[in-house]
Amino acid sequence: MHLALFVTEAGMHAGGWRHPDAAPVRPFGLGFYRDLAQKAEAAKLDILFVADKVGLDDLYGGSVGATVARRPNARPEPVTLVSALAAVTSRIGLGATVSTTYAEPYHVARLFATIDHLSGGRVAWNAVTSVSDSEARNFGRDAHLDHAARYARADEFIDVVRKLWDSWEEGAIAPDKATGRFADEARVHTVNHDGPHFRVRGPLNIERPPQGHPVVIQAGVSGTFQDVATRQADLVFTVHPDIASAKRAYAAFKAQVAAQGRSPGTVKVLPGIMPIIGRTDEEAQEKRAQLRALIDPVAGLSFMSGSMNYDLSQHPLDGPFPDLRDVITGSRGRFQRVIADALESGATVAEVGAAYVESLSFAVAAGSPVTVADILEEWVTEGAADGFVLMPPYLPGGVDDFLTLVVPELQRRGLFRRDYDGATLRDHLGLPRPVSRYSA
Amino acid sequence: MHLALFVTEAGMHAGGWRHPDAAPVRPFGLGFYRDLAQKAEAAKLDILFVADKVGLDDLYGGSVGATVARRPNARPEPVTLVSALAAVTSRIGLGATVSTTYAEPYHVARLFATIDHLSGGRVAWNAVTSVSDSEARNFGRDAHLDHAARYARADEFIDVVRKLWDSWEEGAIAPDKATGRFADEARVHTVNHDGPHFRVRGPLNIERPPQGHPVVIQAGVSGTFQDVATRQADLVFTVHPDIASAKRAYAAFKAQVAAQGRSPGTVKVLPGIMPIIGRTDEEAQEKRAQLRALIDPVAGLSFMSGSMNYDLSQHPLDGPFPDLRDVITGSRGRFQRVIADALESGATVAEVGAAYVESLSFAVAAGSPVTVADILEEWVTEGAADGFVLMPPYLPGGVDDFLTLVVPELQRRGLFRRDYDGATLRDHLGLPRPVSRYSA
Repeated sequence: MHLALFVTEAGMHAGGWRHPDAAPVRPFGLGFYRDLAQKAEAAKLDILFVADKVGLDDLYGGSVGATVARRPNARPEPVTLVSALAAVTSRIGLGATVSTTYAEPYHVARLFATIDHLSGGRVAWNAVTSVSDSEARNFGRDAHLDHAARYARADEFIDVVRKLWDSWEEGAIAPDKATGRFADEARVHTVNHDGPHFRVRGPLNIERPPQGHPVVIQAGVSGTFQDVATRQADLVFTVHPDIASAKRAYAAFKAQVAAQGRSPGTVKVLPGIMPIIGRTDEEAQEKRAQLRALIDPVAGLSFMSGSMNYDLSQHPLDGPFPDLRDVITGSRGRFQRVIADALESGATVAEVGAAYVESLSFAVAAGSPVTVADILEEWVTEGAADGFVLMPPYLPGGVDDFLTLVVPELQRRGLFRRDYDGATLRDHLGLPRPVSRYSA
Repeated sequence: MHLALFVTEAGMHAGGWRHPDAAPVRPFGLGFYRDLAQKAEAAKLDILFVADKVGLDDLYGGSVGATVARRPNARPEPVTLVSALAAVTSRIGLGATVSTTYAEPYHVARLFATIDHLSGGRVAWNAVTSVSDSEARNFGRDAHLDHAARYARADEFIDVVRKLWDSWEEGAIAPDKATGRFADEARVHTVNHDGPHFRVRGPLNIERPPQGHPVVIQAGVSGTFQDVATRQADLVFTVHPDIASAKRAYAAFKAQVAAQGRSPGTVKVLPGIMPIIGRTDEEAQEKRAQLRALIDPVAGLSFMSGSMNYDLSQHPLDGPFPDLRDVITGSRGRFQRVIADALESGATVAEVGAAYVESLSFAVAAGSPVTVADILEEWVTEGAADGFVLMPPYLPGGVDDFLTLVVPELQRRGLFRRDYDGATLRDHLGLPRPVSRYSA
């Protein structure tokens, strides 16, 4: 079983920051993140990773007001954060999100190659395509790219990045002070990429990363996403509210990976899961209810509005949730189900807003450490997951409970490593190390 | 006197990596840079900073062959490197280069705001405009922007970044678990920038950096550069082969700063200087000669070709250097003088290539620790500099000598701090902390 820790500023649950045990993350500095990373490493987790959004949601009511006032939304930039964490950890993998919609492949290839060198082969790039118009407006555009266009760009983007990582063959650098030869130029290659979205000559200006290619993560649920991920991803981060949905998707995805000619074991599937842990199941359920009561529905609606590119402030909080399935853009795949459920249950706008940001449609595993371990074991044993992305409801308590109570239980059951046995993130995940396409 | 350490992979001198005391920087990892940073901090330097180029020179002979084969040219990406160094240092400033020609202001504002938070207010952005067609070709273009266009873009770029840093007022975030108010939305501002090069709505998605604005560094010599730098820079990094040239430029620059309505003391002028230190002046001169003998002229010509956007392989190595003053693009300001000197002296192509990459037109201070301290004292006392960017000829020996022998001599003379007395880079440099333009 592979375990990833999803690191945010204040936990994933919209009410989490108000929990009595939640740390005040101010003043914002390295210490809070360093402590989290070192605890996750002590528990032998595969990787921590940091999500991203390149803007603040400003659709709800036409301003960032609700977004900034009602829950934590100022966040560190992920690449610089994981680079700093590379310096204060030695074994755990480190994933950072960069959107392919607003970046350049040459920059991204360098950033991750550099952190891979600095960390001794521990970095992963979470390649997302961004969803919101709020983000587009920070980059000279009025609206985000449509779904198909941004995945086509992402697909080519990742291709270019992988070519650049290949541009220095293994061992191209062999400095010889006596002769003055620093590297073998025959083993350094231009990539001459010329595609619909990018024209990049190369080579990269940094040598081959220790992992060959840093691990590529992708996240999503739509068909277009799956099409790209089955070809490009080493690890996928998925959203499923329950085991049944996760099982169906897991089987379909692995079959599609095989159809691409890839071994299904070389792409790990990790659904997100929010653990809420008590000494007993009852205590965990009480904690879940306590957290729910701390959610501000408008915080939820501002988040949903940003992800759907639709201003939900147009609808009264206590009225029925409208059928927006054909209206919204953004995270389309995820919201089709959320809206259908809302229509079926007759929930109000406020209720949907509050319910959505409890866990963002990720499964919640609430219970005693044994119960939570049972849930994880079942998902893995039943073919619903290769492991999990842990989404703590609040920090640091919401992750401490998992690391100190659930991880040892998983280790006792032989489901999770007791120590790292490799040096790189690819080692932890059991992924092969790619050879440069330019090697003879 | 302010002292900055220019950090590269293998020192600035083209023959430096072949010096017997030069460290083999392979395998490339954090340790080498961490040791340098910690030594510079122990010596109380103001800042270390990392230059950049977003490509490999491939003009000479139409390929990267000479560039990669003949001297170290694979380099870490500077922003991720200084972020990692932020985690293993506590006082020294940390500067990273990002070109305004190939980046987006929203990204750059976030990167430096994040590192400023992670480091407790110690980061600087070295804003460059890039010079070479080799770089342009990694970003979908055939040639770099012309001089005026790229400085116009840089000027607006820095404006946008400063607006974004201002978008969260001081103290906008004041989390209150009881009421559920996280921040005061009245103190978070869209920037709505709409200019010839950029359209950026904002606000930034991270709160105001500890320094208000991270320090902005600019480097150059041309008139266009000066025009932008007198308005935008907090620190300028200049190129002068001797004190006479540095004095003239210093006086002119400070006058121009004053003409902009800024206090001349709020922009620090730091010429680059390459210290070559021996126990005696004779030993230092011998070391200089020894280093010169290690230069491969073609390594110099491949570098010059990249910086001038002109393929010098067209001219025989032992023929006279051609008059290219009206032909070259790239670093125009710097090369007018280099070419004029070559024409006057009648130097061959190989001689010019070798001479240029000894120090890239930066002054060389070769001598005993007392002699080097005398030189630095004279420059500062005579109004040629507010301090220096130290460009070690090789690493780590070429900087160790300076830190352990020259710094104590400067301290004895009362010219350099014996300890840090502030927490932030602005404190070290004696720069005021800007207030948000949006504050009432």
